[in-house]
Amino acid sequence: MALKAQSVCIIGTGLIGGSLALALRDAKFCARITGAGRTEATLKKAVDLGIIDSYETDLAKAVSGADIVVVAVPLGAMKSVFEQIAPALSVTTVVTDAGSAKQTVIHDAEAALGEKAGRFVAAHPIAGTERSGVQAAFKELYDNKRVIITPTESTESSAVDLVIAMWQAAGAEVETMSAEHHDQVLAGTSHLPHLLAFGLVDCLNNLEDVDEIFRFAAGGFRDFTRIASSDPVMWRDICLSNREAVMAMMKRYFQEMDKMYEALQESDGEKLKDIFVRAKKARDEFCG
Amino acid sequence: MALKAQSVCIIGTGLIGGSLALALRDAKFCARITGAGRTEATLKKAVDLGIIDSYETDLAKAVSGADIVVVAVPLGAMKSVFEQIAPALSVTTVVTDAGSAKQTVIHDAEAALGEKAGRFVAAHPIAGTERSGVQAAFKELYDNKRVIITPTESTESSAVDLVIAMWQAAGAEVETMSAEHHDQVLAGTSHLPHLLAFGLVDCLNNLEDVDEIFRFAAGGFRDFTRIASSDPVMWRDICLSNREAVMAMMKRYFQEMDKMYEALQESDGEKLKDIFVRAKKARDEFCG
Repeated sequence: MALKAQSVCIIGTGLIGGSLALALRDAKFCARITGAGRTEATLKKAVDLGIIDSYETDLAKAVSGADIVVVAVPLGAMKSVFEQIAPALSVTTVVTDAGSAKQTVIHDAEAALGEKAGRFVAAHPIAGTERSGVQAAFKELYDNKRVIITPTESTESSAVDLVIAMWQAAGAEVETMSAEHHDQVLAGTSHLPHLLAFGLVDCLNNLEDVDEIFRFAAGGFRDFTRIASSDPVMWRDICLSNREAVMAMMKRYFQEMDKMYEALQESDGEKLKDIFVRAKKARDEFCG
Repeated sequence: MALKAQSVCIIGTGLIGGSLALALRDAKFCARITGAGRTEATLKKAVDLGIIDSYETDLAKAVSGADIVVVAVPLGAMKSVFEQIAPALSVTTVVTDAGSAKQTVIHDAEAALGEKAGRFVAAHPIAGTERSGVQAAFKELYDNKRVIITPTESTESSAVDLVIAMWQAAGAEVETMSAEHHDQVLAGTSHLPHLLAFGLVDCLNNLEDVDEIFRFAAGGFRDFTRIASSDPVMWRDICLSNREAVMAMMKRYFQEMDKMYEALQESDGEKLKDIFVRAKKARDEFCG
């Protein structure tokens, strides 16, 4: 029989936390979901929308008695949340997160949770949209999406099992890798693309005839820059949290773009075409 | 009463030319559409799909008697097409194109068409998908899309009027600007984004664990890299044709990305957030 929980506490009921709550309710994974966070208006809205059963703004109170605590706050707020909940956690409570960078979260969790850190399981659902906030939450967000968990050597296997069961109940497929590897992979597939999209829109926005420029943007531009509508604070935190892997990936990317610039400078059509052919082949193969 | 034509000849019956043919038939803009091109199999398919009425592989024959000739071939093939059709064009025939860069096309057209160049109207429909070829053509492609025309001082106004009428019949809105300005705007909103997307996929594709990297790519990555599935030859030609404007835009972009890299290096969250906030605001405003 699949593992289930009595009580789940979700700290941060935005798109990620709110959608998880909806999915867990739908799957009847637990009897009760408590929401927690700083902003009472958001929590009230989450109750009104039927996302959580009740809420608590005092994080220590919120986690008391919970089987699982999911910390779904921006990376920059993780440390403070871990510090607030640490004294109130029972020895059986499993803590997990949903942050987009894993090495810094593990570092923050270990520092704050001390001997309870063995029941912390770092996790990252590879899902989301450019929208954010509780009103954007929907129960299908994790359907057939991947969740990467990055346990350390000291993570207890029973804690890992419960977190896997929770994400499977929410409809996701769970995979395990090291936090370091996670951070490298995500730097390439998510963090760098976001920087590139933010950068392009800001770059065009600084041009003189900016209104006209955007007016003549077609569907390709819309798709390409969709992720530039993402939440700035969340992305600032992600970039800072994973800055070394992101900087390494940027360097590689700059080298690639330098090659392209050179090819243009030399009007070297063959070199350009070779890059485009390889890219199209890879993209068609991997993204279908 | 709206201007109409008896006979339209479309050279190049791929996504762009084929979709235009379908839209013009649907609007009953003309009595007859002849397709022309190098590859007989493609032209036969276009007849079978009901896109054109008949076809001709000899371009000189194809344009004879046409009211409008639309040259919808890759930019690298424009010059040769203009040279082949020039002697066979009647003095009343209007010639137009659908290329994504305008200064080089005008240059090629003027060189090849000589005294008939006054009836050439450079045009660029801002529409397309990452797919290409006759089988990708559909009649709604231009619905409410913009078409930029870039007449020169010597372009005849009656020729401009007929090209405007044709694109309006196909469902598009037509706007006029200089070829130079067009090339700058498109370098920013289309050509640079394509280079960035091709570059990102190629860069990740060179990493060791490439399979895993793409496996963990989410929806944002798919959207961001969709344009990297575009036709490599077409994009080689566009980049070479518009290389100066593209290189200038790349330089600006590299400066922007250098700022971001510096901010990461200095862990300067405020600087990063400022860029992201500006970009999100601009993107939300312009792309809705």
